Amino acid sequence: MRVLVVGATGTIGKAVADVLAERGDEVLRVSRTTDLAVDIASPASIRAMYQKLGWVDAVVSCAGNAKMGPLAQLTDADFAFSVEGKLMGQINLVRFGLDHVRDEGCFVLTAGIFSQRAPAGASAAAMVNGALESFARAAAKDLPRRIRLVAVSPPFIRETAVAMGLPQAGKISARENAQRYAELLDGDYTGQVSYP
Amino acid sequence: MRVLVVGATGTIGKAVADVLAERGDEVLRVSRTTDLAVDIASPASIRAMYQKLGWVDAVVSCAGNAKMGPLAQLTDADFAFSVEGKLMGQINLVRFGLDHVRDEGCFVLTAGIFSQRAPAGASAAAMVNGALESFARAAAKDLPRRIRLVAVSPPFIRETAVAMGLPQAGKISARENAQRYAELLDGDYTGQVSYP
Repeated sequence: MRVLVVGATGTIGKAVADVLAERGDEVLRVSRTTDLAVDIASPASIRAMYQKLGWVDAVVSCAGNAKMGPLAQLTDADFAFSVEGKLMGQINLVRFGLDHVRDEGCFVLTAGIFSQRAPAGASAAAMVNGALESFARAAAKDLPRRIRLVAVSPPFIRETAVAMGLPQAGKISARENAQRYAELLDGDYTGQVSYP
Repeated sequence: MRVLVVGATGTIGKAVADVLAERGDEVLRVSRTTDLAVDIASPASIRAMYQKLGWVDAVVSCAGNAKMGPLAQLTDADFAFSVEGKLMGQINLVRFGLDHVRDEGCFVLTAGIFSQRAPAGASAAAMVNGALESFARAAAKDLPRRIRLVAVSPPFIRETAVAMGLPQAGKISARENAQRYAELLDGDYTGQVSYP
């Protein structure tokens, strides 16, 4: 399989790209800093990337951030950043990618467990993650050519927790999480949300 | 209780306002077409409304629309309309309303069942509804002065179904749905999503 991994320099995306490459997939790693770069907050950047890319069998999105902070301190710009940078960014990877994914191909989006269980100070992230989960369930019904669409909502990843000085908060390793992405690419799942 | 009902001229909002008024609440009915008008797609319009309003005990939002249509036909503008007009509109009713709701007051948002189960052609609406559900769960933890926040995800309302020529698709009446809003205002629920 020829698989595009967006956000491939992040903790989650790098592990996904590594796991797929080790099993023999042709992995195209992109992020804001790779040679073939993409900023998913920019629709034009996404369109330009797909034009250069040609056809792929699957698109795995591990990209995008949302602003953390107590609701009263989040600004209009913080919400816009979260919507453009993660929510619409990932949705646009699907919308603009439809003409670049082969028959029976697959999109995998990354939401996050804050959709269901969030600590204080995570309302914008929860909003974005819940939106991506519901989008994946619904939009799967609109895809042509038996293309599939699923979302993954990872828990707090151990490596991220360690880097933040909260080692006991990490639930699974980036590699364990990446295995779930690989399983979703292989199966016939569509319109589902997976909680590793 | 002095209760602001936003979207009070719509099928859901009018029934909510009626049920609350009948039980003796002081109901302030607003929409884009009322004397004290608000367009929730405009942050400035929301701020201006709250300035004129003074204090309320509760804010019930039944306002906002999302664009329907197959994913491949939804435009950038359709997604922006859905995000600004329903998602950020309702979130901004909470953000900007915090200084206008009394201690132990309550916000009730309206998402919709497409968050969980959507037909084809409803990806933007599903996205918005899922976002509002997850926002309510998370942002409830950030509210000051024991103010509560809940969301309701109504099913297809009978009156709407009849008006669309799909009478058998309606699950409950607008009045039955409104009773659930009244119960949520009275209880001590917070951070919950209710499915009437």
